[in-house]
Amino acid sequence: MQINLKTGEKIDDLQLKALKIIQNENDFKFGIDAVLLSHFTKTKRSDEIVDLGTGTGIIPILISGKKRFYRITGLELQEHMADMAMRSVKLNGLEHKIEIIKGNIKSCEEIFKGKKFDVAVTNPPYISKSSGLTGIVKNKAISRHEIECTLEDVVKAASTLLKDFGSIYMVHRPDRLVDIIYYMREYGLEPKIIRYVHPREGKAPNLVLIKGIKGANAGLITEEPLCVYKEDGSYTDEILVIYNIGNRG
Amino acid sequence: MQINLKTGEKIDDLQLKALKIIQNENDFKFGIDAVLLSHFTKTKRSDEIVDLGTGTGIIPILISGKKRFYRITGLELQEHMADMAMRSVKLNGLEHKIEIIKGNIKSCEEIFKGKKFDVAVTNPPYISKSSGLTGIVKNKAISRHEIECTLEDVVKAASTLLKDFGSIYMVHRPDRLVDIIYYMREYGLEPKIIRYVHPREGKAPNLVLIKGIKGANAGLITEEPLCVYKEDGSYTDEILVIYNIGNRG
Repeated sequence: MQINLKTGEKIDDLQLKALKIIQNENDFKFGIDAVLLSHFTKTKRSDEIVDLGTGTGIIPILISGKKRFYRITGLELQEHMADMAMRSVKLNGLEHKIEIIKGNIKSCEEIFKGKKFDVAVTNPPYISKSSGLTGIVKNKAISRHEIECTLEDVVKAASTLLKDFGSIYMVHRPDRLVDIIYYMREYGLEPKIIRYVHPREGKAPNLVLIKGIKGANAGLITEEPLCVYKEDGSYTDEILVIYNIGNRG
Repeated sequence: MQINLKTGEKIDDLQLKALKIIQNENDFKFGIDAVLLSHFTKTKRSDEIVDLGTGTGIIPILISGKKRFYRITGLELQEHMADMAMRSVKLNGLEHKIEIIKGNIKSCEEIFKGKKFDVAVTNPPYISKSSGLTGIVKNKAISRHEIECTLEDVVKAASTLLKDFGSIYMVHRPDRLVDIIYYMREYGLEPKIIRYVHPREGKAPNLVLIKGIKGANAGLITEEPLCVYKEDGSYTDEILVIYNIGNRG
């Protein structure tokens, strides 16, 4: 398959069922959060999934390698990112499973015209609009900061797009947990499962995974901590399993 | 000092500056949650503190042994508990520091007639009103279940009673975190610090300590996990310090 790469772009091997991703050196590149979110997401064979702010398409592609589902639609605001994601989908031959749509989360009702999803996933910008942006490259800034859409916009969009009892899966930073929980309940997506990611055992968490269910009753399960590194600086067994390391000879 | 004990009551030594507490065998007795909440609470010498649902008065008495403050007022709905708390205050000679008031949290505005506090502490009933109550002794049930006041009532009362930028400190179960966070923000008590208590390292938390500040901006700090037991079943060093064990010869 002939895929054109633009300036600064390269193809990275995901070390997962021969899947690949196009990323740009000068742009937002995926990290452990996308990997953990894909792992945390629970799906069924018949599920239609939407990824809100899909960026390079990393989450749909990782989910393709890890989970069963019917189709995933990735919504991305930035033209060049959506274009890159579409080329990554082609590169992996996943056009029948993944669709990338260029559009604004805030316009999701018009974009999807009443279509509802079983699962929404999202790795939204981490840094709130009020934080300073000085010196940050604009494209990167849109992926990292809430310039074009706020956390509330993302939660509202998920609520609009999900079927009753559909699930939302989000990864974010723990410092935004109050906003996440408040807006999820406000928009009828009751938080049901939370899992903190700690760099090391005994350290404060630096990421949080959260699952909500549209229209569910209150009652939150906080799972055991997910630790990334052992004392000696190597990955924990759980991270090795999530990264699929050890399954390969 | 002559203190009358009623049927089922006994005096327990708190192993902290010779402080004692009267508890009733047939009633709600304090646990690690009260000890951890007292430790988690930060106070200044001039602080007026209110304990919402003081029960036996355990939290005011523990805070007296651990923290500096001006005065603590404990509000308790149940007549016999308030009476027991008053006798414990006398037993410890703390009448000049601790006042126990018999009254309903829901009537706090009338009870305190506009008086405002620097700090509110609360160890509210853990089990929500909707949960079953079959077979539970009534007095115990009021301390454990939200029969007479809900979590929302407690948060609302704290908001009413606190000065601007006053702090609320609460201990609760993690399964209620969504309600806690939602109501705190709803009533203007922004959650600022959260600390989970895990029975053992790597296990899911079974308690959560949370600090909110009235009128503060958003932004939550999630502290490192607080673990109670080591692998071998003995207390962790941090718990030993909190329980003041080791400071005594």
